[in-house]
Amino acid sequence: MAHNNFEERRAELLAALDPSRRNEFQRLVALLRPADLAAIAASVDEETRLRLIATLDEETAARVVEELDVEGQQELLSRLPEARAKAVLAEMSPDDLADLVGELPEAHRQRVLELLPPDDAQHVRHLLVYPERSAGGIMTPEFVSLRRTMTAQGAIEFLRTVAPEAETVYYLYVTDEARRLVGVVSLRQLITANSEQRIEDIMSRRVISVPAAMDQEEVARLFRKYDFLALPVVNDDNVLLGVVTVDDVMDVLSEEASEDIQLLGGAEPIEEPYFSASIGSLVRKRIGWLFVLFFAQSFTGTIMAAYEAELSAVIALAFFIPLLIDTAGNAGSQAASLVLRSMTLGQVRFADVTRVIGREFVVGAILGVGMAVLAFLRARAMGEPAQLGYTVASAIFVVIIVAATVGGALPLITKRLRLDPAVASGPVITTIADGLGLIIYFQLARLIMGI
Amino acid sequence: MAHNNFEERRAELLAALDPSRRNEFQRLVALLRPADLAAIAASVDEETRLRLIATLDEETAARVVEELDVEGQQELLSRLPEARAKAVLAEMSPDDLADLVGELPEAHRQRVLELLPPDDAQHVRHLLVYPERSAGGIMTPEFVSLRRTMTAQGAIEFLRTVAPEAETVYYLYVTDEARRLVGVVSLRQLITANSEQRIEDIMSRRVISVPAAMDQEEVARLFRKYDFLALPVVNDDNVLLGVVTVDDVMDVLSEEASEDIQLLGGAEPIEEPYFSASIGSLVRKRIGWLFVLFFAQSFTGTIMAAYEAELSAVIALAFFIPLLIDTAGNAGSQAASLVLRSMTLGQVRFADVTRVIGREFVVGAILGVGMAVLAFLRARAMGEPAQLGYTVASAIFVVIIVAATVGGALPLITKRLRLDPAVASGPVITTIADGLGLIIYFQLARLIMGI
Repeated sequence: MAHNNFEERRAELLAALDPSRRNEFQRLVALLRPADLAAIAASVDEETRLRLIATLDEETAARVVEELDVEGQQELLSRLPEARAKAVLAEMSPDDLADLVGELPEAHRQRVLELLPPDDAQHVRHLLVYPERSAGGIMTPEFVSLRRTMTAQGAIEFLRTVAPEAETVYYLYVTDEARRLVGVVSLRQLITANSEQRIEDIMSRRVISVPAAMDQEEVARLFRKYDFLALPVVNDDNVLLGVVTVDDVMDVLSEEASEDIQLLGGAEPIEEPYFSASIGSLVRKRIGWLFVLFFAQSFTGTIMAAYEAELSAVIALAFFIPLLIDTAGNAGSQAASLVLRSMTLGQVRFADVTRVIGREFVVGAILGVGMAVLAFLRARAMGEPAQLGYTVASAIFVVIIVAATVGGALPLITKRLRLDPAVASGPVITTIADGLGLIIYFQLARLIMGI
Repeated sequence: MAHNNFEERRAELLAALDPSRRNEFQRLVALLRPADLAAIAASVDEETRLRLIATLDEETAARVVEELDVEGQQELLSRLPEARAKAVLAEMSPDDLADLVGELPEAHRQRVLELLPPDDAQHVRHLLVYPERSAGGIMTPEFVSLRRTMTAQGAIEFLRTVAPEAETVYYLYVTDEARRLVGVVSLRQLITANSEQRIEDIMSRRVISVPAAMDQEEVARLFRKYDFLALPVVNDDNVLLGVVTVDDVMDVLSEEASEDIQLLGGAEPIEEPYFSASIGSLVRKRIGWLFVLFFAQSFTGTIMAAYEAELSAVIALAFFIPLLIDTAGNAGSQAASLVLRSMTLGQVRFADVTRVIGREFVVGAILGVGMAVLAFLRARAMGEPAQLGYTVASAIFVVIIVAATVGGALPLITKRLRLDPAVASGPVITTIADGLGLIIYFQLARLIMGI
């Protein structure tokens, strides 16, 4: 929907919230999708949001609540009358319910679980077992499975009765008596098959499944590689537990990219939209890293103080320090962000670390020669003596090689240490490059200029 | 497929490439998916790859070639015997063909188009009209459309005959006599409908379509918002031109995130996998930005030289320069990467620029107070006089506010100027923060220390 169109609809809908205009309200709701209604709900104040949700029918209300973030869901549900909250919860899908309940403090969980229909509560309890960012954590436990002895026609009849309930029916998984996964049929294969053919004769046995414990990034990688719309999740005995759908995976891709970008920028990722996050939350997400980096970087002062004699002798040495450490930081983050991204895409693994260092050494050396020439010319253009020019140039050369190799290796090493490689690829590599850069610079100054 | 499993299959398949083992080869191919075969093809030398593709049946060969990157496709097809290349091209899907042909130099295009079946050549010519990164550029022109007067049963019969050819049949678009889009039916609705119901009574008229010129990032945003599996692409007269499918959109999301991360790291994005890129290509992608930033950052030398008198008077002023410019850079890139990501997610637009600046000013001021206290303590701990401590602290305070507000506004402004905001959020903000930081620092030194 075009943006202007949306703004118009929003205004009309809010104007029709008045009880006397119920028919007009229903007409407008029918024109909007849950995501649009959720966007409208998120854009208004709390009172209006509450009235909006209270005026919608229960199923639409559930779809809209599902689109809100977990904080928004909690807020809203806690303020609805209990009967209404119960009705909306009953219409929500188990995976969204599990995300909601999972974020609640232990004490509140039981209360919410008691509001749910027994079946849903059971589903949610099962889902809560899996880590939030695993295949089990993002799967839906509501899926359609077929028996291999069904006919194509029989399967279609079966779908007619159950499909409106299931979240995904484009791939149909086939299970045996023990609910073990034995094959997959696409809805497309089903309708193009002969109506009397048995499922086991149509199904593909080459079905790829993932264990419930698999990390969500790994799951996303499989979706991208094989262009799946859904992937079945199994336990150690190959029993089908649930299905991960492509829309959840898009959220994963987007979430992980968001996190990487914010960590590269040197801040803890925020989960809410920018304008929904409070000033306090923005400050909290940033101050930690700012402090840590400040402490780490404050050693540059110690290093500089250690070379006070050299600095006093040739004050012009100081002029090139920002340029030197910036260039080192740039060379380091180029290598780190490239390797980070290649890791996310599954192209580079820890086993490749020596190959990465080798490549980055060569790339760094070539870049270093080019930049060293520039640095020399720059120093001479500022009217500095040739000896200072040689010092700056050779420091730039060495520092770029060091920064590129360390920058290339660091994301792989941090991942190996089970830390987040994005953190290492952002300000951490800059900090390391700064410290090493200063030491190399002053040591070379001593050597070349004899101070 | 587990990694070890894959390595094993790969070794078996390559061992079975010998003409005398054709049966074994066919058996192994049947166990693998095109994406696996493509991964194997990408991992071997050129001769083996050629033999592998030559040994596969034409349809499987086409699926494997589709999974390779465009460069790999060109290389391979140019070395296959013409008859074989023609047969493989005939099996490839039009959108992959268009990507392939689009990358060829003008002179070669005609030759490749002549190798294609006339229908495909026509499709490809149509697709080449659209920019590579638009809805038109990523859509497939092969889709199934229904007439509204068909019955559900009639539509299913129709699908039986055409579906195996079409890339996507989970959403069926309904068109009128002039091929204008009038509705959409999901395959699920179709099979759960009464067999005599007419399509126009089942279909949803609330169909969201996108213009062919829409940027692919915007298309991806709609997929994420509405959890679509496919979206129809129309021209100005609402005539249905093609369909964008969710697997293409996952590639878009991943590609855009890759680019953002590499640009944040201060390098032109590489498109090939890390180890496939030549050293020359790695150098070329990085040296441009390294040069540009070097020139921009070399003004820090000019600034420092302008304050030589102050530096000579209080050599300790230099000790805090790396710390000051690093902290400024950190505060700036925190704000910039957060705003960049919020823009990608569609949460923040140019119209919000003053609100962003307002928020960042407040956040910067709070962070600045905290960091200023630390900076003062750090200076005193190094044994510097209180006056130098006040200078460093107040410079840190001012610089963090400036960096946060400029960092927050810059991605919005660069986007407005139709430049890539990711570039501005990486090293550019650091460079700006450095220059401003130094000037603020020395001016405050003059003021506070009276030098």
